[in-house]
Amino acid sequence: MTKYYIEELSKYDGQEVEIKGWVYNKRSSGKIKFLLVRDGTGIVQCVIVKNLVPEDVFEKFDLLTQESSLIIRGKVRKEDRAPGGYEIDTTDIQIVHIAKDYPITPKEHGIEFLADIRHLWLRSTRQHAIMRVRHEIIRSIREFFDSRGFTLIDAPIFTPAACEGTSTLFETEYFDLGKAYLTQSGQLYGEAGAMAFGKIYVFGPTFRAEKSKTRRHLTEFWMVEPEVAWNDLNDNMELAEEFLEHIVASVLKNRDKELKILERDITLLQKVKKPLPRISYSEAVDILKKNGIDFQWGNDFGGTDETVISSQFDKPVIVHRYPAEVKAFYMKRDPENEKLALAMDILAPEGYGEIIGGSQREDDYDTLVQRIKEHNLPMEAFEWYLDLRRYGSVPHSGFGLGVERTVAWICGLEHVRETIPFPRMIYRLTP
Amino acid sequence: MTKYYIEELSKYDGQEVEIKGWVYNKRSSGKIKFLLVRDGTGIVQCVIVKNLVPEDVFEKFDLLTQESSLIIRGKVRKEDRAPGGYEIDTTDIQIVHIAKDYPITPKEHGIEFLADIRHLWLRSTRQHAIMRVRHEIIRSIREFFDSRGFTLIDAPIFTPAACEGTSTLFETEYFDLGKAYLTQSGQLYGEAGAMAFGKIYVFGPTFRAEKSKTRRHLTEFWMVEPEVAWNDLNDNMELAEEFLEHIVASVLKNRDKELKILERDITLLQKVKKPLPRISYSEAVDILKKNGIDFQWGNDFGGTDETVISSQFDKPVIVHRYPAEVKAFYMKRDPENEKLALAMDILAPEGYGEIIGGSQREDDYDTLVQRIKEHNLPMEAFEWYLDLRRYGSVPHSGFGLGVERTVAWICGLEHVRETIPFPRMIYRLTP
Repeated sequence: MTKYYIEELSKYDGQEVEIKGWVYNKRSSGKIKFLLVRDGTGIVQCVIVKNLVPEDVFEKFDLLTQESSLIIRGKVRKEDRAPGGYEIDTTDIQIVHIAKDYPITPKEHGIEFLADIRHLWLRSTRQHAIMRVRHEIIRSIREFFDSRGFTLIDAPIFTPAACEGTSTLFETEYFDLGKAYLTQSGQLYGEAGAMAFGKIYVFGPTFRAEKSKTRRHLTEFWMVEPEVAWNDLNDNMELAEEFLEHIVASVLKNRDKELKILERDITLLQKVKKPLPRISYSEAVDILKKNGIDFQWGNDFGGTDETVISSQFDKPVIVHRYPAEVKAFYMKRDPENEKLALAMDILAPEGYGEIIGGSQREDDYDTLVQRIKEHNLPMEAFEWYLDLRRYGSVPHSGFGLGVERTVAWICGLEHVRETIPFPRMIYRLTP
Repeated sequence: MTKYYIEELSKYDGQEVEIKGWVYNKRSSGKIKFLLVRDGTGIVQCVIVKNLVPEDVFEKFDLLTQESSLIIRGKVRKEDRAPGGYEIDTTDIQIVHIAKDYPITPKEHGIEFLADIRHLWLRSTRQHAIMRVRHEIIRSIREFFDSRGFTLIDAPIFTPAACEGTSTLFETEYFDLGKAYLTQSGQLYGEAGAMAFGKIYVFGPTFRAEKSKTRRHLTEFWMVEPEVAWNDLNDNMELAEEFLEHIVASVLKNRDKELKILERDITLLQKVKKPLPRISYSEAVDILKKNGIDFQWGNDFGGTDETVISSQFDKPVIVHRYPAEVKAFYMKRDPENEKLALAMDILAPEGYGEIIGGSQREDDYDTLVQRIKEHNLPMEAFEWYLDLRRYGSVPHSGFGLGVERTVAWICGLEHVRETIPFPRMIYRLTP
């Protein structure tokens, strides 16, 4: 039996179809009634004319409430004024389940009220659009790497040692082996993968027990982390800009309707094409100073600093060669200036902050051992990682992109809580 | 600058190329030396002829050890006897890093020894092949759902309540909100997604703190869980068999070389086409009895039972309509026999056991409330889930497929520990 979906109605112009869905809205104009039905793929207006349907079908209209489920039959008719281009001339209605007092009404609701009923909030047009953009972002991320011969390497979620202090780690008892910690990044495992497969990407959830209540922080978020053997910092920046261009182009192409629903100004997104502007950390500091910000060379950028820097550009900007002191132990130093790490971050425009962070990795065994000591990290936890420098070490680079921040930026959202189906924050663990 | 990869050498027949990689093996035959180089995409034989290269290049050969990294230049030559169809006539070798005493040698190693150095073990041909099959399975899973209009709904990893007892749950402190538990299944969230999007899939890691040391158990494993509004048990079985057919066909098509490396008998895989045989639980019990197994109707199947049942068929077999008592509270009962749940499992052939488990879900509010009570589950933890039956409830169905068991079956592996880059088991949390 054919299954009909609203997004495919154009295939059935003039034909009888059966739509299974939920009441989105309804209105009445005497002898003509209009039922807006959603089925998860779209919304269609079903027209019910008194003299054209049996009496009982016409009367069912009055019973239907918002989010009641129903099966509706009728003929598809082209209607240029309709959002999807088609309407249905109803011939029959079968009520499946009447929803009583659906809590989300067309009036405004408070954000915590909506967050508490996230499982229902997802049915609204706006959340729907965001989730479909999210899906397209994730699809295009995988497509990018799959089509370039990268191998997917799922890094473990449970990690054995608290490599960089336990303060932002979630921990759990792990049988007789003591504590396990939830991963904050799959990068070190990704490096092992790159030595085995040349080009890899890690893609999974990561966790941060930060006590931050900002609009940019989730405790559980998805991250994709490519790692490429033989790539230097420059290759890394090139890969990242091609990657961002691909993601944004995919969303513009395949989710234009959703961006319209979100009232996203897409002119800025259309500019996301390589080459992206590249500035050094020192040049970024100059920008801050020119803008009257009292910033000390050597510090890390805060959220406001990032906004000021990125606002100088109309597309994402790559900032490279940060002071090594503010960056992680595994980053390679700039051979031309030992104080600098071969790091690069990409800041999204419009105040969305860092969406990509990456670097060339230290590939020399002795130097890496020294860095681990300098950072007071437990050497034994890194013995396996040091093996990658013991056995055929090569230059290599990679970066991480946070999915939720990318969704927020591309959709133009105020807060990351709307970027994931069921957000987890310091004060939210439900539904 | 062009980057050359071994798997693309056919594009450069007769041309000079530069391969960056690692020494896989080497052998010498007087004035001709052979270097097998791997770069993560393949292995190529590089031929070094004494009189055709400078003296120092010829001498470098002797310095190279297994897994040393190097850049090798030479001309690509078609050679039908070579595994990839091409060889390289070497003109120059640049040694990047000499690996000393690489621990994995061509001799046999114990499995725990290899597991301890999983980060290096991944470089071996066999593990390489498995990971690429795994990647293809995951790619084809997403392709299947994406091309059918399903929306990806990432379920949360942190869940608030211990829905079905805490004995197999990992837990962690969650700020001021008490304990959070790591998800065992995203299904309930997937059901919320299906009511919003019609057709969805959840795909992420899941966790089980089972004290099982069998060859089928990991504490951390990936699961994909489609959920479709309006689908009944029959639709669910159809979706599952099309899905399995798609996955197996994709691997056969795109990873035939890897299956050959794994010495997988592909004749059985080629038979995985719909329709799959479908038998009821009661028919499965009859099979057990005919095979001399003392099995009581009403019990759940154990591993041996599954093996006996599946061995009657030369492709995966769908077993449906299990006793409700052995299945989860959310499964809908068979209207023709209240003792049965509208469940279905798919058992892989060759003793690989259950790879898919699913059901039609209970969609009636009152019945679901009763089931929650019967199972002594905390009602308040399910209030949000009950909302899905309060507001426009519809029939719906879904299933879950375990990635690692599927990898084990398709690759023909003895143990799931080889099916994931960094396996986590009751006794293993490293590397």
